[in-house]
Amino acid sequence: MKNLKGACIFAQSGGPTSVINASAAGVFIEALGQENITKVYGAAHGIKGILTENFYDMGQEDMKELELLKYTPSSALGSVRYKLKDASVDDTDYKRILEVFKKYDIRYFFYNGGNDSMDTCNKISKYMASSGYECNVIGVPKTIDNDLFGTDHCPGYGSAAKYVATTLMEVNLDAKVYDTGMVCIIEVMGRNAGWLTASAALAGTKGLGADLIYLPEVPFDMDKFVADVKDVCAKNNNKCIAVVSEGIKFADGKYVGEFKASATDLFGHAQLGGVCNVLAGVIKQATGIKVRGIEFSLMQRCAAHLASKTDIEETFRAGREAVKAAVSGETDKMVCYERKAGDKYEIEYKLLPLELAANTEKQVPKEWITANGTGLTEDFVKYALPLIQGDAKAPLEDGLPRFAQLKKVLATK
Amino acid sequence: MKNLKGACIFAQSGGPTSVINASAAGVFIEALGQENITKVYGAAHGIKGILTENFYDMGQEDMKELELLKYTPSSALGSVRYKLKDASVDDTDYKRILEVFKKYDIRYFFYNGGNDSMDTCNKISKYMASSGYECNVIGVPKTIDNDLFGTDHCPGYGSAAKYVATTLMEVNLDAKVYDTGMVCIIEVMGRNAGWLTASAALAGTKGLGADLIYLPEVPFDMDKFVADVKDVCAKNNNKCIAVVSEGIKFADGKYVGEFKASATDLFGHAQLGGVCNVLAGVIKQATGIKVRGIEFSLMQRCAAHLASKTDIEETFRAGREAVKAAVSGETDKMVCYERKAGDKYEIEYKLLPLELAANTEKQVPKEWITANGTGLTEDFVKYALPLIQGDAKAPLEDGLPRFAQLKKVLATK
Repeated sequence: MKNLKGACIFAQSGGPTSVINASAAGVFIEALGQENITKVYGAAHGIKGILTENFYDMGQEDMKELELLKYTPSSALGSVRYKLKDASVDDTDYKRILEVFKKYDIRYFFYNGGNDSMDTCNKISKYMASSGYECNVIGVPKTIDNDLFGTDHCPGYGSAAKYVATTLMEVNLDAKVYDTGMVCIIEVMGRNAGWLTASAALAGTKGLGADLIYLPEVPFDMDKFVADVKDVCAKNNNKCIAVVSEGIKFADGKYVGEFKASATDLFGHAQLGGVCNVLAGVIKQATGIKVRGIEFSLMQRCAAHLASKTDIEETFRAGREAVKAAVSGETDKMVCYERKAGDKYEIEYKLLPLELAANTEKQVPKEWITANGTGLTEDFVKYALPLIQGDAKAPLEDGLPRFAQLKKVLATK
Repeated sequence: MKNLKGACIFAQSGGPTSVINASAAGVFIEALGQENITKVYGAAHGIKGILTENFYDMGQEDMKELELLKYTPSSALGSVRYKLKDASVDDTDYKRILEVFKKYDIRYFFYNGGNDSMDTCNKISKYMASSGYECNVIGVPKTIDNDLFGTDHCPGYGSAAKYVATTLMEVNLDAKVYDTGMVCIIEVMGRNAGWLTASAALAGTKGLGADLIYLPEVPFDMDKFVADVKDVCAKNNNKCIAVVSEGIKFADGKYVGEFKASATDLFGHAQLGGVCNVLAGVIKQATGIKVRGIEFSLMQRCAAHLASKTDIEETFRAGREAVKAAVSGETDKMVCYERKAGDKYEIEYKLLPLELAANTEKQVPKEWITANGTGLTEDFVKYALPLIQGDAKAPLEDGLPRFAQLKKVLATK
């Protein structure tokens, strides 16, 4: 554990969340107050910004704007999807990163992202260590998918879950407004883990949830799906709300979103617009009832106006904890949340070796999925409900959110 | 003008809005306090509830729940799409309505809806008058489409506009997060009038709007659209956000949503999922840039958590004014908003003869659309911005909205 003195750089990676910038705020505000940190940089578009020496001098920003980052959706510095090769295969990028770190005397590197980003973080950390360059590397988790290993939950999940549950309650009321039949099929993000789709069950606690919930954890069976919907419709005046994960797959591993029905039907093609429209077509044909496919699309990950206050505060704190850990000499770790035992919801901030976090996906436990495969147990609700508590959002200006406006002064090369 | 004594009935019709129940709250709360109103009924599913004698005794409800209606989306009593025939063609329904009104001594009828509902209201009013049955009939406007004639704007529009503008700002930030190309095509409701689509221009005042806006008021040209998008992409690192109304039509009157491209392409079919996906397919093929179609779907009309406080207050007041007008002897009128002259936004509540409101659609004035047909002028912004001011929403319970819970006690037959 080394206490280093030098500059720090922070970068954002992967799909954004509505609170991802709360971690940025935490890192920047904490780092700007640390004596051992001489300069605070923010990389444009993740690791790419480092490779191309495109980064901002965060010391030039107004504190008020940095605070507003807490309520500003999407990655304020820009994001990237870029996976580093193994250094043993091709170390070009690593050499370049080392060169840049040396040039700017960067001794602290914070990377904000999901599984892939933690892998990147881990590789860079290992490379720096093997090169004898002292640099403390800390990962800051984020993902609406909530699928990172080793943390009770992920920054960003609570807000996305709050969006899904609240919006589902509203759509539930709207979809039942007529006395005629209506099947609503709502598509929620989550390619391999169903955490976000499962949050539909929170709306269910208010009697305004989904009749059926399909997670990628359970192999999807089209005949059972049609039977499930028909069953609900028969009991419920031809009304049914189903929430499906974008990542549901058949038993053979093929995505339902790529399902092609028989050549003779109207829907014999992979639909643009996702699995909800594929399923809407199937149900329309099987039942004749009016069907509407609804994608929560980008809104579920950018609706900062509906963020969870708990999530914002924890996410901000995760950024601060990353800096504190690095300054105290920690490296090659990811900040994670540990839930304390007891009825009252409380978390502790811990550190997890990056290689444990990298590339492992945590799915919804099978025992939290009901026997029929279309619902969640009370244990899931107990787990998720504390994460969506409280409201906090950007102040209004002309009735619209006043998001952070950064100057983005490029660091002098 | 007759001052009548007897029961009143209120019914909701057509597509809901996120604040439609604020008018219900206004009508019920005002009516329950009026001496001349002996009973307050709420019809289940609009005019159908009257025809089938399915209505609720609103006097049985708790005042707290009636107040919560202000923040509860969708039509709490249930809605209907049912157009009465002309009485001269078939007066069966009218006879039945008269029979029901007589049976329950209903002397006040309030109908909450858009163009069609005002027409229904007008027909019933005329029939009652010609039958010599004294009943004061007042229409209460509502529509996110904002297309009712004779009122400055419509209850429900401000909240939907606030949803569109706020969500567009958030999606704008998300859609630009990577340094790779991305065209976003967002579909907004409004079959024949582009008011709601135009509200995208409000986000533009914050620099987070759409590059291109297409209203049904302007004939749509696919070649121009492709050229417009390419032009924005060329200037803007292959990034473009276009907002389109679901109701855009080609010069020949055909809906763009029903457009079929050539038989050889991937998109040679009417897509489920609306015009945004049709256009996404066209742009994908024409440019090769990543494209995402986003439908604001039901959310734009049911996102009560993002309602405009101004809209809620006006909509509630519209309900009260309807009752006051009827009790003071007015009939065959619709409540409408008149904007006062001057810089400060203020409205007055007026009454308009129902036959003027019925079946007339008000479109966005041509002079508020920019010369290139893809933007709105400053005059539109001045018109619309006051309508989205302020926040108000249901209290939270477990982090989720606590919507009104009505007992819905059926009136004794």
